[in-house]
Amino acid sequence: MTTHRIEALADGIFAIAMTLMVLNLALPEAGKGAAELHSLLIGQLDKFLGYAVSFVLLAVFWIRHHEQSHFVKRTDRKHLWINIIFLMFVALVPFSTSLVGDYPDEPVAEVFFGCNIFILGALLLCNWAYATDHYRLVDPSLDPRLVALGKRRGVVTPLVAISAMGLSFINPDISAYAYLFIPVFEGVFEYRHRRMTGGTV
Amino acid sequence: MTTHRIEALADGIFAIAMTLMVLNLALPEAGKGAAELHSLLIGQLDKFLGYAVSFVLLAVFWIRHHEQSHFVKRTDRKHLWINIIFLMFVALVPFSTSLVGDYPDEPVAEVFFGCNIFILGALLLCNWAYATDHYRLVDPSLDPRLVALGKRRGVVTPLVAISAMGLSFINPDISAYAYLFIPVFEGVFEYRHRRMTGGTV
Amino acid sequence: MTTHRIEALADGIFAIAMTLMVLNLALPEAGKGAAELHSLLIGQLDKFLGYAVSFVLLAVFWIRHHEQSHFVKRTDRKHLWINIIFLMFVALVPFSTSLVGDYPDEPVAEVFFGCNIFILGALLLCNWAYATDHYRLVDPSLDPRLVALGKRRGVVTPLVAISAMGLSFINPDISAYAYLFIPVFEGVFEYRHRRMTGGTV
Amino acid sequence: MTTHRIEALADGIFAIAMTLMVLNLALPEAGKGAAELHSLLIGQLDKFLGYAVSFVLLAVFWIRHHEQSHFVKRTDRKHLWINIIFLMFVALVPFSTSLVGDYPDEPVAEVFFGCNIFILGALLLCNWAYATDHYRLVDPSLDPRLVALGKRRGVVTPLVAISAMGLSFINPDISAYAYLFIPVFEGVFEYRHRRMTGGTV
Repeated sequence: MTTHRIEALADGIFAIAMTLMVLNLALPEAGKGAAELHSLLIGQLDKFLGYAVSFVLLAVFWIRHHEQSHFVKRTDRKHLWINIIFLMFVALVPFSTSLVGDYPDEPVAEVFFGCNIFILGALLLCNWAYATDHYRLVDPSLDPRLVALGKRRGVVTPLVAISAMGLSFINPDISAYAYLFIPVFEGVFEYRHRRMTGGTV
Repeated sequence: MTTHRIEALADGIFAIAMTLMVLNLALPEAGKGAAELHSLLIGQLDKFLGYAVSFVLLAVFWIRHHEQSHFVKRTDRKHLWINIIFLMFVALVPFSTSLVGDYPDEPVAEVFFGCNIFILGALLLCNWAYATDHYRLVDPSLDPRLVALGKRRGVVTPLVAISAMGLSFINPDISAYAYLFIPVFEGVFEYRHRRMTGGTV
Repeated sequence: MTTHRIEALADGIFAIAMTLMVLNLALPEAGKGAAELHSLLIGQLDKFLGYAVSFVLLAVFWIRHHEQSHFVKRTDRKHLWINIIFLMFVALVPFSTSLVGDYPDEPVAEVFFGCNIFILGALLLCNWAYATDHYRLVDPSLDPRLVALGKRRGVVTPLVAISAMGLSFINPDISAYAYLFIPVFEGVFEYRHRRMTGGTV
Repeated sequence: MTTHRIEALADGIFAIAMTLMVLNLALPEAGKGAAELHSLLIGQLDKFLGYAVSFVLLAVFWIRHHEQSHFVKRTDRKHLWINIIFLMFVALVPFSTSLVGDYPDEPVAEVFFGCNIFILGALLLCNWAYATDHYRLVDPSLDPRLVALGKRRGVVTPLVAISAMGLSFINPDISAYAYLFIPVFEGVFEYRHRRMTGGTV
């Protein structure tokens, strides 16, 4: 059983979750005037930004998931189920995003969204830790520094999610944008990762 | 005509069905307060659990479908149509799940869901029985014990579905969780399967 | 430019169109009693059958599209656009199906559905005629009898669609089921096709 | 890291965006008469045409994206993110299309749609310019005339989008159809491209 199967399913679920989020944007009712259209579009500026943030976050998780698949050569039952539970929370992101979009001022919505991102990050970290533990599912020649880098990197997302949840009790308007630190931190780790592998991966 | 084609379609339909289920979760109406949001989220706790159960069930069927594809080397017209009808009931799962989510106390909803799962299990069993009968679509070197194990394994899901339907007339609240026995039983069979093939498949 | 690209897009669009149709089934409103649920389910029995008919029709078109891809070795701009327009009408099938489901007694709904199926059948025939004309996109060694069989076969769907549209003015209840002749005729052609190729394709 | 991964995600997102647009077509309410059905269908003739225009535009972008992938042999972090932002605006097309469909007479809707198409065109041009700059991600043997042709070609879509947005202030009814010049211009460039490569690509 290779990892090819789970990758095809993951690509499908990521693609759908990323596209379904656009359904959260309120469609205007036909027959209204220009003024209503203006206010509808401007009124949901928050939602557009939320859509963009969630799209970028899902893209980050997709990139990370694929990078792990690159090194994970085999799969087993537990690894498969970690992946499936991970995909279950990927498919939940459109719902979490709509919660935050509809209730921009409510900490409970931010906490729901934050838990979703925390769980996604934690499961990816589990996935890497499980696969690399005693080189269970990876090539024995894999550089141990890459294993360690992957673990340190995996801690970033859960930490950012916890910080954003805390921040939402102080200022819910800002907390959603805290997640944008995730792609920034990813870029730093990416740079170190590329230096380690000589840019071949 | 190889099985590659039907696999690509199956991956797509599974991915969409698993993601569409999240649309069953009621989106809050904008402009309500924190109290309404709390009660909305808590009020549909049943739906979240139903989403998780159906996601896990679809994942089990997806794994089983792919495991069968691994051994089935050819396809013919009948095999193709068994698969298509199977996919038709896969695409119906989001609807069945929403029925159970909206009517948690109604046996008729549970029976509808149970029939859906029963048919999925029965079609997978048919698929395996048809493909392995006289080694019609599988490799002649396939271990006969694996053929028999696959058939015994295929009986589990329909039996659990019938039990859950019966249970729904006694206690509809519990019956939905009876389906969680399916992944548990699957794990047992998986263990025996791996021992038989020496862990290579 | 190989046909691989258009196949991946086609698999995706077929999978989504087949799964989206389930959204046409009316979801019950929460909080109603068992009687309402019963009448909802029975009241949309027509819709369930319509869903099944459309799913089977889309599966037939998907099989035919893939069978053509098997023989078509190259693609060009015109061939690509015939395929894209074909996929545009594939994506329209969920809408046509919902029209027929909501207006089972109206010939205009049946005619809309019939035109959709007619266009799908006609475009597949065009696709085959264009690709095989002077062996433009197929292997020169392709049996001319297979080319002719493919053309005769391609005429069936448009003819059935026209008949069903005519029938809808006489008896709209029956006309939807006329489309089930398409898979039956397909089976006949399939049998002749297999005899010609010696069962290898 | 090859471009294979991003292609699978792109195929999925394009397929879903193209199919989701059909959800913009208003579904009739059950139980209405033939007269209502007629007026519903005729009343949204504009929407059908808008659906067709957007489907064709997405198909043009899909073809262009794949043609670029054919030459781009490697990927890097920046290239990946140009692609992801591109896909974010692909997923937004169903929403933009519904805006234009519901507000056919409002320049603001046309401008929203136009910006979406402009950004898509500009990002594809960026993608090509970035990948071919100093042969960063393409084969060094790539004909410099093809690089230049790709850039000239990439300017067409943004220019048409700007023209259509300007036109929408004069005559919003016509402006939507201005986008149909994009496939026409594409055909001209395609012809020159094919002459340059001798029809091999």
